Amino acid sequence: MPYIETKVSVAISKEKEQRMKERLGQAISLIPGKSEQWLMLRFEDNCRMYFGGTNDAPSAFVEVRILHDSTREAYESMTKAIMAILSEELAIDPARVYIKYSPGDDWGWNGGNF
Amino acid sequence: MPYIETKVSVAISKEKEQRMKERLGQAISLIPGKSEQWLMLRFEDNCRMYFGGTNDAPSAFVEVRILHDSTREAYESMTKAIMAILSEELAIDPARVYIKYSPGDDWGWNGGNF
Amino acid sequence: MPYIETKVSVAISKEKEQRMKERLGQAISLIPGKSEQWLMLRFEDNCRMYFGGTNDAPSAFVEVRILHDSTREAYESMTKAIMAILSEELAIDPARVYIKYSPGDDWGWNGGNF
Repeated sequence: MPYIETKVSVAISKEKEQRMKERLGQAISLIPGKSEQWLMLRFEDNCRMYFGGTNDAPSAFVEVRILHDSTREAYESMTKAIMAILSEELAIDPARVYIKYSPGDDWGWNGGNF
Repeated sequence: MPYIETKVSVAISKEKEQRMKERLGQAISLIPGKSEQWLMLRFEDNCRMYFGGTNDAPSAFVEVRILHDSTREAYESMTKAIMAILSEELAIDPARVYIKYSPGDDWGWNGGNF
Repeated sequence: MPYIETKVSVAISKEKEQRMKERLGQAISLIPGKSEQWLMLRFEDNCRMYFGGTNDAPSAFVEVRILHDSTREAYESMTKAIMAILSEELAIDPARVYIKYSPGDDWGWNGGNF
């Protein structure tokens, strides 16, 4: 039940989106018990964003929502993977990227709650 | 102080939006102490979303943010109501919908915090 | 590591966005240990929003995500500042604004986690 929302200040082409979708689908396995089969993704591009008071360089915010909490080690591995994807696919400097992990105990799916 | 954000991969017509607004306004009473009078809603359509690695069928993510936590029973009832709305109004398969409940203790409104 | 997302039902001109960016950059210092140097912002305008069942007046939802929790006093001060910005820059009635504070212990930045 992970849901990853990727918000970036630059454009994401269809080709890049496809590539990022595939790479995030692999990366999610870094969090124990998670897999692409259960992963929901959303991409938002051309966001009106600022970091440190400026918008003269690209920036990104990624929120990783998951069912229940995981370990700091898993989150650390996931951060490295997401930063690599944003840097390699969209040329976004990791110093202008935040990733927030938001676990939650109450999730609905398919008519009921987990 | 509930805020429900509905993000879907399909289009939402003005008529459908109106209907969903009304139905969510009724459904929120399933959570004790909540009513449409205090409900804020946002709808986002045509989102670039994937579920299980695919985007060949509609999907949706709904986040229900509320002041303080509620009960699992209330969340379960709310999930059934939201799934019915998405299925009946937008033909979104409940197996491609996630709903996350995000309670919080610090909320501002009208110049102060609750 | 604060990230402030401002969602409003009205339009935000480039001039207003610039002004709100500057004012939020000052306001963030009301939360101990936070400064504009580490602040990420995003603005979304023309959102399809309802409050209390209506959309005949502007409304806004602001989420303040921060690393670790802060004090109720700090959040209260921040609420006053954000309400003033929305009222003065966009003429949004504070009675139609919600602000949610969402602290989190796991954040990634620049290739690692805090």
